[in-house]
Amino acid sequence: MSRSVVLLSGGLDSATALAVAIARGDECHTLAFDYGQRHRSELAAARRVSGALGAMGHRELRVDLGDLGGSALTDRRIAVPESSGTGIPITYVPARNTVFLSLGLAYAEVLDADKIVIGVNAVDYSGYPDCRPEYVAAFEALARLGTKRGVEGGALTIDSPLVTFSKADIIRRGLELGVDYSTTVSCYQPDEQGRACGRCESCRLRREGFAAAGVPDPTRYGGR
Amino acid sequence: MSRSVVLLSGGLDSATALAVAIARGDECHTLAFDYGQRHRSELAAARRVSGALGAMGHRELRVDLGDLGGSALTDRRIAVPESSGTGIPITYVPARNTVFLSLGLAYAEVLDADKIVIGVNAVDYSGYPDCRPEYVAAFEALARLGTKRGVEGGALTIDSPLVTFSKADIIRRGLELGVDYSTTVSCYQPDEQGRACGRCESCRLRREGFAAAGVPDPTRYGGR
Repeated sequence: MSRSVVLLSGGLDSATALAVAIARGDECHTLAFDYGQRHRSELAAARRVSGALGAMGHRELRVDLGDLGGSALTDRRIAVPESSGTGIPITYVPARNTVFLSLGLAYAEVLDADKIVIGVNAVDYSGYPDCRPEYVAAFEALARLGTKRGVEGGALTIDSPLVTFSKADIIRRGLELGVDYSTTVSCYQPDEQGRACGRCESCRLRREGFAAAGVPDPTRYGGR
Repeated sequence: MSRSVVLLSGGLDSATALAVAIARGDECHTLAFDYGQRHRSELAAARRVSGALGAMGHRELRVDLGDLGGSALTDRRIAVPESSGTGIPITYVPARNTVFLSLGLAYAEVLDADKIVIGVNAVDYSGYPDCRPEYVAAFEALARLGTKRGVEGGALTIDSPLVTFSKADIIRRGLELGVDYSTTVSCYQPDEQGRACGRCESCRLRREGFAAAGVPDPTRYGGR
């Protein structure tokens, strides 16, 4: 049995990754990040999802990425775009997955966990460079070189169980495993009740995913 | 000319790394971390060193590594040892350099910097796995895969100019470059005025470094 640190954003993908890890019998410890995101209701969603799916424990860690600026997701002066352009979008948060995986690695060392689970996927990855399989493999190599467990020859895996899944695949798998997607928040600019805008790139990908999976979209959309 | 993010701890090594980067003409932006360390006077030392050596700017970033526990450097319930054992010591902070380099990478992306400078050295590295050249190389590979700059083919280097230096080499180089080591804090448990205990592993390595370099030790030791 693995002891796993599961990075949980409160969104659809990471909730499904947690469900996959729990279904295979991992002892899961979820970790969410308060990084100054404007969509803060995702932190409440992460707590709900962790409890509902049966994680062993949930931690929230604060890191002041927002203070550095540079992204529409943390800087309220930059508008969230409602259509996707080409290249890396303004919603990209600099080095976000590297920072999150690093903090997950620190927590894994403290817990003596042998796995870090991250819900990235390269198919609908929206142009983020830190969602690709080669990136995940590079982090695993780093983790083995830079930790006590790695140096001592223990197992240490970065597991991205959804990396080759489309959004529709993810939704189908999550529904099989009993994920209640109405409690997850994917929107980049939800209201205070966690209701989605229905217009941003993340809302679009999510809605298209439910349509492609052929299941009703349980997302709570706001009135704006 | 490089634009560099220089990770600055307030200690001897990172002060010297900053002096090296400034001497070669880099535009240096220093970054210090408030990670719940018990030796908090190092944050004041980092600010002093940054200003004294002529960095372009200085940022302090908070990250709650201390909340995760597991190290004598962040957990006051674990005593700082006064002699070195074998293997990885209890003063090792889980994944610390990985977390710091990740946050340095985020800042580098925001500034569009092409270099991150870190003062690790593998010679007197005290058994920390994340101070070795192969670790630094693995982080560089990760950085290129996981960032906008890297994906777009821009230069991105993790520079550890002291990695093959002994403590005495570092001190000699720093003195040549005008570093005032009396303003730096290396001790794991300094008092509130930043005066060193003179007994911990870090104090021992530092004192031996000045002796081996054949120069007076300017460290301010406390009366405890």
